[in-house]
Order: sequence, then structure tokens, then C-alpha cells
Amino acid sequence: MLTFKRKNNKPQFTKRSLLNTKIISPSIRAAAKNDNLRIIPLGGLEEVGKNMTLYEYGNEIMIVDMGLMFPTESMLGIDYVIPDITYLKKHKQKIKGLVLTHGHLDHIGAIPYILPKFDKLKIYGTALTLAFVKDRLEEFGMLDKVNLITFSAEDKLKIGSNFNLEFFRVNHNIPDGVAVVTAVPSGVLVVQTGDFKFDHTPVDGRPADMGRIASIGSRGVSLLLSDSTNAEKPGHAISESQIGRNIDKIFDETKGRIIFATFSTLISRIQQAITASTIHGRKVAISGLSMEKAVRIVIDLGYLKTPRNAVISLKQARNLPDNKVTILTTGSQGEEASSLYRMSLGEHREVKITKNDTVVISATPIPGNERAVYYMMDNLFKFGANVYYDKLLDIHTSGHGRQEDLKLMLSLVKPKYFMPVHGEYHMLAAHARIARSMNWPEKNVLLLTNGRILEINKKLEARILRETVPSGYVMVDGLGVGDVGNVVLRDRQVMAKDGMFVVIMVIDKRTGVLVAEPSIVSRGFIYVKESDELMGGAKKLVKRLMEGKNKSQISANWPILKKQIRDAIGAYLFQKTERRPVVLPVIMEA
Amino acid sequence: MLTFKRKNNKPQFTKRSLLNTKIISPSIRAAAKNDNLRIIPLGGLEEVGKNMTLYEYGNEIMIVDMGLMFPTESMLGIDYVIPDITYLKKHKQKIKGLVLTHGHLDHIGAIPYILPKFDKLKIYGTALTLAFVKDRLEEFGMLDKVNLITFSAEDKLKIGSNFNLEFFRVNHNIPDGVAVVTAVPSGVLVVQTGDFKFDHTPVDGRPADMGRIASIGSRGVSLLLSDSTNAEKPGHAISESQIGRNIDKIFDETKGRIIFATFSTLISRIQQAITASTIHGRKVAISGLSMEKAVRIVIDLGYLKTPRNAVISLKQARNLPDNKVTILTTGSQGEEASSLYRMSLGEHREVKITKNDTVVISATPIPGNERAVYYMMDNLFKFGANVYYDKLLDIHTSGHGRQEDLKLMLSLVKPKYFMPVHGEYHMLAAHARIARSMNWPEKNVLLLTNGRILEINKKLEARILRETVPSGYVMVDGLGVGDVGNVVLRDRQVMAKDGMFVVIMVIDKRTGVLVAEPSIVSRGFIYVKESDELMGGAKKLVKRLMEGKNKSQISANWPILKKQIRDAIGAYLFQKTERRPVVLPVIMEA
Repeated sequence: MLTFKRKNNKPQFTKRSLLNTKIISPSIRAAAKNDNLRIIPLGGLEEVGKNMTLYEYGNEIMIVDMGLMFPTESMLGIDYVIPDITYLKKHKQKIKGLVLTHGHLDHIGAIPYILPKFDKLKIYGTALTLAFVKDRLEEFGMLDKVNLITFSAEDKLKIGSNFNLEFFRVNHNIPDGVAVVTAVPSGVLVVQTGDFKFDHTPVDGRPADMGRIASIGSRGVSLLLSDSTNAEKPGHAISESQIGRNIDKIFDETKGRIIFATFSTLISRIQQAITASTIHGRKVAISGLSMEKAVRIVIDLGYLKTPRNAVISLKQARNLPDNKVTILTTGSQGEEASSLYRMSLGEHREVKITKNDTVVISATPIPGNERAVYYMMDNLFKFGANVYYDKLLDIHTSGHGRQEDLKLMLSLVKPKYFMPVHGEYHMLAAHARIARSMNWPEKNVLLLTNGRILEINKKLEARILRETVPSGYVMVDGLGVGDVGNVVLRDRQVMAKDGMFVVIMVIDKRTGVLVAEPSIVSRGFIYVKESDELMGGAKKLVKRLMEGKNKSQISANWPILKKQIRDAIGAYLFQKTERRPVVLPVIMEA
Repeated sequence: MLTFKRKNNKPQFTKRSLLNTKIISPSIRAAAKNDNLRIIPLGGLEEVGKNMTLYEYGNEIMIVDMGLMFPTESMLGIDYVIPDITYLKKHKQKIKGLVLTHGHLDHIGAIPYILPKFDKLKIYGTALTLAFVKDRLEEFGMLDKVNLITFSAEDKLKIGSNFNLEFFRVNHNIPDGVAVVTAVPSGVLVVQTGDFKFDHTPVDGRPADMGRIASIGSRGVSLLLSDSTNAEKPGHAISESQIGRNIDKIFDETKGRIIFATFSTLISRIQQAITASTIHGRKVAISGLSMEKAVRIVIDLGYLKTPRNAVISLKQARNLPDNKVTILTTGSQGEEASSLYRMSLGEHREVKITKNDTVVISATPIPGNERAVYYMMDNLFKFGANVYYDKLLDIHTSGHGRQEDLKLMLSLVKPKYFMPVHGEYHMLAAHARIARSMNWPEKNVLLLTNGRILEINKKLEARILRETVPSGYVMVDGLGVGDVGNVVLRDRQVMAKDGMFVVIMVIDKRTGVLVAEPSIVSRGFIYVKESDELMGGAKKLVKRLMEGKNKSQISANWPILKKQIRDAIGAYLFQKTERRPVVLPVIMEA
């Protein structure tokens, strides 16, 4: 198989705890041959999130999507992960524009972090997608740094002098998503689906246009890049309308207040909650800043159909009887700062949960969030609330197509080559298996990883190059972008596990002897007030180690001395506690 | 509903990050009324794991199960969580024995940690259950501290002078599991299922005896405590035999080596892997200490049917052709120290994964382990291995009954009162909903939390008392049991997020002035070598803060001075980085 032409057949990886940083290949070729199209995925092939793909042709680069990813649990303290743009920075002058498929953070979220590296980037997107981009850029005070260009799914676009773009509408759980169809002068035609599913009865009433997709397919597509998120799930994606019927049923049976939690970006679900409320004579009050903002944006742009006065404030809601109120809120993932989480702890200022409340959690826990979600839910149950969640009833459906949707896309587009994208590697592997089961030849199913380069020549032949471009994780922590690396993370991991143990020695500058009792400070290691003996033992050990030394031994060899102390104290503490805190010897001269 | 008779209708909880420690009620009554039976769950009602229930009658206490729980992700560095036994320590002399339902860690794992508090505890269990207990106690060098008493499912037992026990066999994915039927002199009859499912075609050929359960049910059961782990899942548990057929299919189609990963305690699955290997002419080599031990125990006791020489060493396996070898291994949860995990990184000394290998992961990721499992799987895929896992094929079934199994148990036992146990609170709530749907009156479905007390009088009436017993989390970290509490954990959490920042000042004992440049040591905060400016700024800030002070201000008020430095440095660092490391000022006199 093409993808495994590596030395020793050994994949490039590191220990999970040390993250997934790729070794940078020294030999990135300066430029593609003029009439070869290169597809370079910088993210989204080994994770859910940080989707970003480069198209390089002649002297030009077009970028599709610029997403972020939420950190894995080993990335302690990290806010977001964004793609590595080393390659782009090196070829700044080639960049002709960024095209966006839809407005979710895993496709647009890295823009504010990457933007400052480039001048006046041209960003192309549909109206709603750009509205979400604009909102985020305003937050960062960066609106003047871009050039936003709106297109609609029916438009044709030229980016640079080589990329001729068309689009087709796809269904997803945010409106206005498109697939990108790119033709280059050599004749290569590439289809990139973005996130999609097929829904014949979507909430926005605009199903994907099969005829148009088939007609593009009939033109001879060289390469399809298609969403793999649900490639392991059999069958078709459940239609939003089916979900709508279940939601309606809950509204039908509920006498008290309804608290409806979902993602603020899940516009179709928000529409369903508002529609069901209106039908059942309820007003909708919104709790949560991101939800308020999202609803405002989609109402302003006409993507949400709400009768006049359907949405009221939380304050107004308090004056209505319970059966006239729906509270639409964030927190479906158990996020600690969210409205629903605060309600579950009784800490929400305006909404106190009682046994007359019905809580609808219309979302599935994202892997890694399960415990937070169930913890929150348990507290809601303990207040006596009636809680509906995905395990009890189908009240959430993913925005990503399942196996039958994926097969349909492959059948309609009929590409020569197929490259699964958007997902962890096992999801891509499952998607590849689907294509092979449909008789795509093994060599035409291209299983890449981030940073690999796929090149298609004018004979429409594809090959994966040996060279790679940097494609590791760039971590965002507070104001810092990329300043937390493996060393800092490893320290956090060790301290998280067993805490830290600082040993401070003050020595006389002239004589080299200790001028005071060694001082010990520890955090996260053991409850110090009950550990006198242990601390005393450690101090004694330090003094004994120092006693034998003369001035020259000490001053000449601080690093060696520190290492001796670190080792001795580390061994002592492990023997006594079986814990391994970070031991930090500090020597000061006075 | 009975369970919510608390002041203010407010459940007792704390922030997730601060853990789930219960407030200890001051008024635990000295003893139950002589002829009231008290059921006191110390664990397993708000979590999966740490199952332990006390039965108190007259002056006697019987304990059912003594399990541990694996830590949640906020319990940084913790190895295990065990039940709080404050109440038991207070009533030591009453304890008449510990009865075990089966040999899994969530039911027996806390024994070595709790045992040292009691003299020569009598532990009752079936042969296999006690074999696993014995193995664990040997590891801890504690075999002399107990009195192990074997019973079989057909036996009757008397514990103390009040507890008359019978049992019935249940199906689970470890053999020799039983439900405990307890009668006390007042006439109260209690059935506690332990972990169970109904499997008409189990691997060990011993289905649960419906007739016997029904006959116990016909005697008038006052209370049923039943396993809620899968109460949210509709339908019946998939039979082990169905899983067996799918495993057989994989063996049938595989030409190369098979690496078969599952839990070392999942004896039925181990049996299936060995049976399938034997049928297909493969020898089984075992990798992983816990797997080796488990297989040895079950073979010794005759619970595993293996032809002679079916099991060989890894070394012997290397001399056989690939299609004659199965490697049975641990690591189905992506545990970092496990055999399969090391194989996935290419770090296993004896097994190197190639594209000729087929890996079967016969387990479902436990919530919280998903990312670790998929990370491991992705690396196996990158080696080119063919990986089968639960999402692709039913090759794992849980040992816990689903909704229809739970209904069957309720129908057979026909208890007056029903108390869901074994599960997170939402699972118990789902189980309660099932009972209510079967027309158990609301007041007879008793939704307790850990530490609550259920009392059944001789008129067979149950009520939940207002008093509670301590039932929080006791954490095991290395050699320490209970010495890591909320303070230490909170420090670990803060350091995990943003690291730590130690500021050391050496002052002249007589004058109170700084005798050296303040020293700064940080870990997990920022990459120091690239942060000269930030560190310089912090030092300057410290010096400026110290300058204004005279000797008496300093020496008299170290705590105040430290607080000033902590606040000022904290604010400075946050302004520059938006991170909040633990700031630790240390003042030393020289």
C-alpha cells in the first residue's frame, strides 16, 4: 500500500504522554513542478479537529479550512491545538486565499491564531460561515486584518490564477455548508466534501442536491477527500426530522419548565427547540453567552425562523408559568463554565432546578467528556429533575454521514482516487475499507497522515511523496501560541501525578558551607502538616550530602551537586511513599 | 419521593474539581433497633466501582463485597479509590464477616487496603472468587490476616447469629459469581444480585437457575438490590455464544498471527480465545503478567478447559509459523504499561507488529479510556495490522444485564421494595424507571446514594433514615491510603494546568534586606529559556516590593509579605500570559 513506504515500516509516533510532534523533514522541495497539483493535509487526518488542507499548484497555494482541535487529556492546561504552519510561513507569497466549508470551530477556529502571520488574508465563505468568522475576529480585534469575500453555493470562483472553484451544498448540523470542487489547469478535478451527511428531510428544508453532485461526478473527478468521522457507524445518519419528532414528543408530554441544552453551533437543533416551543405555546429564554450570540447571528441573517417575540429574556421568563417556558442553554458537554453545569450545582443565579423541571440534553458526549456530562446529569437527577439524554431517546443526531451516506457520496462523485479525511486514523481506515468494499483498487485508496504530500500529475496519476511538511501540534495556552512544548507539558504531567518537592540550600559564597537549615517546599505531593517525619528525613539527607563537600567541590559543580541531591531525595521519597514528585534542588549564594 | 427528604432539597455535592467528599453526619446512631435490619451502601451507588454494602442487625454487621474504583480524571496521580470505612472502624466488634459475590476488582479490590484495620476478618466466597482474593493478599503479604471460607452456590451459611445466607448462581463474565440471599430473624428477606446477566448459552455451560430464583421469589422477598450498570441499554445482553461465533469467524478468515487482547479477569472471553485457537490449530502464548496469573488460577481450579499443551511460551511461539499462533494479551484499555500498548509503539521486546498481524481487541473502552484506546489502535493501524474492535463487530459483550434482563430479575424475585445498586446515579435512575414501568409503586422504589441508611422493620416496612454514615472517596496513592485529600489534589490540578513558579528571597537576618538577587524556579509554566524578559520583569517586581520595607516589617510579617508577593507576581504573570501558575514565595534568612 502506498502509505507505508517508510523506512523500516515504522510509523512516526512518540509516546502518548509526549504528544504527537512530527519530525520535520529537512528536504521540503522548494516548489511543486508547475503542472503537478499537490494536496497537503496539515491536520484532520489523525484527529477530530484542526482541519486544514493546502492545495499547491504552480506558484500558488490555496488553503481549505483552518480549524482548531480541543486538547486531549494529556495536554494539561492547553486551551486549543492548531495546525503547524511552518510550511505556509516559508511560502507566504504563494498564498492566494482561504476557502471555508462551514462555520464550525474545527474548520474556522484557528483563523485568529494563524492570521497575524499573514498580511490581509483573503477569506472566502458562505454568508453564515463568514458571520461566525467575523464574530470571532471581532473578539480578537482582528477584523481589519482580513478581506472577507462571500459566495453562495451556486457561484463559481477563481482563486489566484490556477484554482477554479465551484461548490455544492451539503447537509450538516449548521446551515450553509458546502463542498469545494477545485479544477486546476492541468485538468485535475478535486472534490472536498467538508463535514457532511445526506438528509432528505433537513430542518432548513434544503437537502443536498444529488443531481448536481452526480453531474460533477460525470465530469471525471480525479480525487475525492471525504469526511470520515462516522465511517465506523453502519447505516444512514438519522434525519434531523426524526429527532424533531422525538423532541416534539417530549414537549407534548411535559407539564413543567423545559431546559433544553445543546451546542450553540448546532443551529438545526436550536431551530427545532424554538419550533417545538412555539407550537406548544412556550417562549424561549436563552442562557449562555455563546448561545445568545449564535442565535442573534442566525436570526439576523435569516437562517432561523422565529415568530416575533418567540425569544424573551430570562427575567421575562420568570413571570411566566412553568409550562410556558423553554430555557435554551449551553453545557451539553458538562463544561465547567457553562450555564447548565452551574444549574446542576445550584449555582446559576437565575435558574434553580426543581423536580418540576425537565432537562433535555440534545447532544452526545464527545469522547473524553463522558464523565463530566454524567456527573452533571447525576446532580440534575438529585434535584429531582426529569432528564432526557441520548441513551434514553434519539434526541441527537450527528452532522456526519454514516457508512451508507459515505457510500452514496463515493458513488455519486466516482473519483479515480479516494483519500479519507476528517477523523482519527482508525476512522480513516474504516472509510478506506468502505471504498475497497465498493471495489476501488487498493492503490487508489490513499490513506495519508498529516503532513504527507499527495501529488497528482497532468496524466491524472497520484502518488504520495516521501517528503513531509511539519504538521505537529501547536498548542495555545492563554496568550501563548506555541510556547508550551513537550518539556513544559512533561513537567505538568509529572507534577499532576505526584506534585513537586523543592529543596533550597543557601551556601556561604566564600566557604561553600550551608549558612542555614535547608528549606523544603512541596505542593501536590503529600499533606505536609502530617508528614513531619518525612520532611525531617529529607532535610537530614541533604545536610549529610553537603557535609562531605568542600568549597571547590560545591562551587565548581553545581549541576553535579544538584543531580546528586535530586537522585538521593527522589530515591528517599519513593522508598517512603512510592511517589515520584518533581524534585527541584535550588542552591543560592549569600 | 423518599430520597429527597433533605433540607432545601439540595443534593450534597461539591465542584467536580474538588471531588465528591461527603459531609459527615454527626449523629450516627449508636446501634440499630434490635429487630430492624439496616442496609448501608458505602459505595457503588454513585459510581461504577467501590461496591460495598453493610447489613446491620441487632449487634452484628455483615459486609457484602469490598471493591475499589479506578480514579476519575480529576483525581490526578491517584491509583485507586476505596470506600470510607469510618463507620466500620467505629463498630469493629460487630463485624461478623465479609461475603463476596464474585472475583472482580470492583468487588474485592479494596480488601488489602481495608484489611489492616481489622483482626482476622472472615471472608466468605466461592472457590474461584477466593482464589483471586488469595492471589491479591499474597502480593500484599497479608494472607495470615484473614480467614478464608469457601462456599458453593448450593450451600447455606450462617454468619454471626443473625444472618442466614443462601445463594444462587448468576451469569457474569467471570465464573463462580453468586447472588446473596439473606434472611434475618425478624423475617426480612433480602436478595442482592451482585453483577449479573442472564445468558442461556454461557461459555461455562451453567446458565442462571431461573427455577431456583423464582422459588426464592415465592418466599416473599422484602428487598431486592440489583445491578444497574446497563439499565440504560434496551434489550437483552448479547450471549457470550454469539460473541464466540464472531470470534470464530475472525479465526476462520485469518491467515497470519492473531493477537487477542481482553481483560485478564474476563475468563469467559479467555476461554473463547483458547477454544477458537485450539479448533483452528493454533497454540496460545500469553503476554502480560496479570493475564498469565489469571490463566494459571483458572486452569489450576479447573474453570478453564484447555487441551494439554494448548498454552506455550512466547519464546516457543516464535518457532511456529504465524498461522499457528495466538498471542493472548492485556491492554484492551490502552493502559500505558500493558503488553498491547507496548506492541503498538514497537517497544515490546518479543512481539513486533507487522502488516501480517491481526489484532482483536475484545473489550469496550471504559468511559475515560477512549482516547488512549484509539491512540493505541491508530498506531497498530499505522504498522499495517488488521485491527478488529467493538465498533466493527460484536466481539465483546458486557457482563451486566440490559433492560430486559433486569426486568426478568425483578419479575422472578418479586420484591416488595426495590433498590437499584452498582452504577452511577443516572444508571440507578434508569433502573428505577424500569421498575416503575413494571408498576412498582413510586414509594417502593428506593433511590439511595452512598452513605444513606435503609431500615426495614419487622412489619417489613422500609424507610430511608435522615442520618448518613461517612461514604466519601478514600484515595490510594502509592503507599499512602487516605493521605492525599482535597488540598493536595487541588494543588496538583492547578499545577497540571499552569505549572508552578517559585520565588526565593534570601534576606539578611539582622537588616532584613535582600542579600542576593531573588531567584526564580518554574516548572510547567513556560519554556524558560525563551522567557528572559518575563523572568526579569518578575525579579524586578519582587525587588521593588522588598525595597520599601524595613526589617521589622519583613520579619514580623512573613505571611503578609508572602501574600503580597504571591498576589503581585500572580497578577503580573496573568497579565503577560493569561496563565495562573501556583506562585510560591519562599523567604530564607542567612
